[in-house]
Amino acid sequence: MYTLRKKAAQTKARLGTLQTDHGEIQTPIFMPVGTLGSVKAVSQDDLVNKIKAQIILGNTYHLYLRPGNEIMQAAGGLHGFMGWDKPILTDSGGYQIFSLSDIRDLKEKGATFQSHLDGSKHLFTPENVVDTQRILGSDIMMILDECPPWPAEYDYVKESMGLTHRWAKRGREHFLKTDPIYGHKQHQFGIVQGGTYKDLRKESSEFMASLDFEGLAIGGLSVGEPTDIMYEITDFNTDHLPEDKPRYLMGVGTPANLIQCVALGIDMFDCVMPTRNARNGTIFTRNGRVNVRNAKWKHHHKLLDPDFPSDLCRRYNMSYIHHLIKSDEILGLELTSLHNLTFYLWLMEQIREQIKNDTFQEWYPRMMEQVEQRI
Amino acid sequence: MYTLRKKAAQTKARLGTLQTDHGEIQTPIFMPVGTLGSVKAVSQDDLVNKIKAQIILGNTYHLYLRPGNEIMQAAGGLHGFMGWDKPILTDSGGYQIFSLSDIRDLKEKGATFQSHLDGSKHLFTPENVVDTQRILGSDIMMILDECPPWPAEYDYVKESMGLTHRWAKRGREHFLKTDPIYGHKQHQFGIVQGGTYKDLRKESSEFMASLDFEGLAIGGLSVGEPTDIMYEITDFNTDHLPEDKPRYLMGVGTPANLIQCVALGIDMFDCVMPTRNARNGTIFTRNGRVNVRNAKWKHHHKLLDPDFPSDLCRRYNMSYIHHLIKSDEILGLELTSLHNLTFYLWLMEQIREQIKNDTFQEWYPRMMEQVEQRI
Repeated sequence: MYTLRKKAAQTKARLGTLQTDHGEIQTPIFMPVGTLGSVKAVSQDDLVNKIKAQIILGNTYHLYLRPGNEIMQAAGGLHGFMGWDKPILTDSGGYQIFSLSDIRDLKEKGATFQSHLDGSKHLFTPENVVDTQRILGSDIMMILDECPPWPAEYDYVKESMGLTHRWAKRGREHFLKTDPIYGHKQHQFGIVQGGTYKDLRKESSEFMASLDFEGLAIGGLSVGEPTDIMYEITDFNTDHLPEDKPRYLMGVGTPANLIQCVALGIDMFDCVMPTRNARNGTIFTRNGRVNVRNAKWKHHHKLLDPDFPSDLCRRYNMSYIHHLIKSDEILGLELTSLHNLTFYLWLMEQIREQIKNDTFQEWYPRMMEQVEQRI
Repeated sequence: MYTLRKKAAQTKARLGTLQTDHGEIQTPIFMPVGTLGSVKAVSQDDLVNKIKAQIILGNTYHLYLRPGNEIMQAAGGLHGFMGWDKPILTDSGGYQIFSLSDIRDLKEKGATFQSHLDGSKHLFTPENVVDTQRILGSDIMMILDECPPWPAEYDYVKESMGLTHRWAKRGREHFLKTDPIYGHKQHQFGIVQGGTYKDLRKESSEFMASLDFEGLAIGGLSVGEPTDIMYEITDFNTDHLPEDKPRYLMGVGTPANLIQCVALGIDMFDCVMPTRNARNGTIFTRNGRVNVRNAKWKHHHKLLDPDFPSDLCRRYNMSYIHHLIKSDEILGLELTSLHNLTFYLWLMEQIREQIKNDTFQEWYPRMMEQVEQRI
């Protein structure tokens, strides 16, 4: 499904395309997160026309609980359910089981958990998360993994990685002997674990590569470790991943994180940061971060960045945006969410242009600094 | 500012146009309510392009408290503040003082009230609400009035009406000797009171007509009285209003209310119902009301009304809309709010077409029944 189009000369940045039955994706790419079948506060029309999203992400854990597999299958999968005909990636639910659900009983067979909504008990196995993602009909599905916290002892991370590997093998086998439900092709990505231990990362990378997934993710980062360690492990890890497979760094990150990790060889990203921070009044721009709740915007009767292609920047003065967020107006959440995602996708497009024009090397350290300013 | 274009033959329905410096308005018309400078959950782009709003309403009481007159004037008025270049009508704040604020001290001079936000004390007078609306820069401003509750004794309503009349005279005089701030023309509407007492309504209508406002509103209805009384008083009241002035029925109402009151000679409406009910999961359609929270929609994997020009009807299956509202997803509020306003404006357009084609008389009783069904 992946074609490597170009490798940058002085960094590990790559240009590529992902082929899916719902369309082609230009990488490096950021995937907006649509937890419950909706990218929060943003309409599908705006995702396509304003944000220019090429692919979005759905959360298996959340969608399995609400609306549930029966309704999802009757709806024709997540594409039919949410009226979205571009590519979708779904995670396996592993991360949410460990971070959101109330009780966890982790055995060789799978993970038993209680719903965070009503306390009901459920079991996720490497096989049934494939089945659920068959029902979701995502273009790319993820294997079930265990994601250890940071910091974690070597022995714990090694044992956890072993479980993830055995689950990966079972998940891959189950994927290969089951069929898509809705006529379009589905792909499966493995997830490399190993925490911040390089020998484990190497071992996990080689193991996951041996199962011949259509793509490989780096899991277990951005879970609390310092940023420089995240960069160091990402750098190390991509050295041990096959060149001909797309590389997805899960749950990352800030605009600067995306730029740096592209330089370290990453092709795909997802993160709730642009939408979650938007709802708290933080917006990301090409000139830095803005806290729109800050009193200094109250009297700023100007557009923030009239040449930037988001509604917030082009149409609304900052005094108005400040007023909307301070007054809890829903339009405030809509405009900041729409803006942040427009910016994230704009940034990825810039990155692709810079790689294409052989200017990425000079451009990226400057841009990393610029987007991390506070304005 | 008003041109009467056509009178229907067998009802009191009228076609007309309102001229403002921000554009022409075709009447009968419904005005979406943008309390705090935002029509809740709807963007200015969608108001223009999807809802086809010709004019929106802002609330002086709310905008005076937040963001306040200083910021509003620095922003160039409400048009500049919210990035809206079509017509705006603002109320005087009278209704909100009596319904929202904590303390009320009603004297000849004006009304003293405490902010519902922080308890701060403020005084609204017939003169200073003109000044505040000069700062808002609305195309149409309303006079300060007292709106008695229902039911209310004759003597109380008569006395209250007397106060409203004296305030109207002062407000009109102040309007005539002050100038717009921003270069565009402003118009002022009087408000007829008199409760449900016909002799008072007649007296108030004649008094307000004598002050030669650019338009006249019927206030003090839709405050709890039965619908048939609201219709009866509206019918009586329009008989006593000059033909050459636009007639605005404040705070009304349901789709059926709008249809009936057009037949009784009303040109302009506003109401929070389409947006407020949307947020509670009630949508209005040409075939009746829908409670999208109802469990029956959970398994309805179909569009509600694929030929109706709203995103909710055309793009999203009802099972998805149900899921969004039940899951408290912001997109649910956006889609239902956008739909209800699209429907209200669509209904007004239908009404104008029917009047134009001399078919209103046959069409309207059937349509009133149809829109009040429960589906």
